[in-house]
Amino acid sequence: MDILLFCLFLAATFAAGATGALFPTGEWYKTLNKPTWTPPNWVFPVMWTSIYLFISFVSARVAVLEGNAYAMAFWGMQIAFNALWTPVFFGLRHLKASIPIMLGLWISVLGATITHMQLDFWAGLAFVPYLAWVTVAAALNMAMVRLNPDQEPLQLQNI
Amino acid sequence: MDILLFCLFLAATFAAGATGALFPTGEWYKTLNKPTWTPPNWVFPVMWTSIYLFISFVSARVAVLEGNAYAMAFWGMQIAFNALWTPVFFGLRHLKASIPIMLGLWISVLGATITHMQLDFWAGLAFVPYLAWVTVAAALNMAMVRLNPDQEPLQLQNI
Repeated sequence: MDILLFCLFLAATFAAGATGALFPTGEWYKTLNKPTWTPPNWVFPVMWTSIYLFISFVSARVAVLEGNAYAMAFWGMQIAFNALWTPVFFGLRHLKASIPIMLGLWISVLGATITHMQLDFWAGLAFVPYLAWVTVAAALNMAMVRLNPDQEPLQLQNI
Repeated sequence: MDILLFCLFLAATFAAGATGALFPTGEWYKTLNKPTWTPPNWVFPVMWTSIYLFISFVSARVAVLEGNAYAMAFWGMQIAFNALWTPVFFGLRHLKASIPIMLGLWISVLGATITHMQLDFWAGLAFVPYLAWVTVAAALNMAMVRLNPDQEPLQLQNI
């Protein structure tokens, strides 16, 4: 595998993952009503770090294959929606606006899983934990919207 | 050109561009000291919309070419850093933390410009306005750090 190529994909995931450090879960998140099956906080960085390493590794392999146009387009799409979700949820605290972003993320990860698998079975398989995790995250996001009907987004304009 | 492919790249830029609507320039931005050559507000959405259309169009062409691994990896990298910058600058109001993000964006756009050009001259040329604009944005970001030494980032934890 081309190590520089891996580093470029990893840099992209680093930018998306940096949102977790820049917009951390804090007191506000603690006050939210959460479903009983909400994973403990420590699970999130562990899952994301694993996922980011997986997808950078396999996409560096798929990037050099012919016919990878859709796989690469879905890769770009998923990382953009991924980077967007955390600032909207934890920065703006906009639970509802996070839902369509999560939907965009879910669709792009599904697309990436399928298109990677068509080119390289193991590459596609490496996206399956990501798809599963984004499905959990989407369900969690929707549950939080339902359980916190009075939650208003942060009015940045007034601060 | 494959229109669906174009739409996937455009969806990625839409996610990055949505930060402009979600984290708008408001009263806070007005109070910042800005260099005399700061472009008026309306220029930003016009430039970004044009850039997003350009790069989605040409990358849909480059995505189907052989040997596009680096071009696609830089594409993913630039869109992730692009999506990250606005929430950190306008959301967190973290002028200093925006600088390394802008640097990551600049490097990835330079990489995308060169690697696209190697595959398709016109595709590379379409990245040149993006590179120019990110250079202006980086200079602007650095000038704002210098002109607003007392500017503190928003302490989301305390809100």
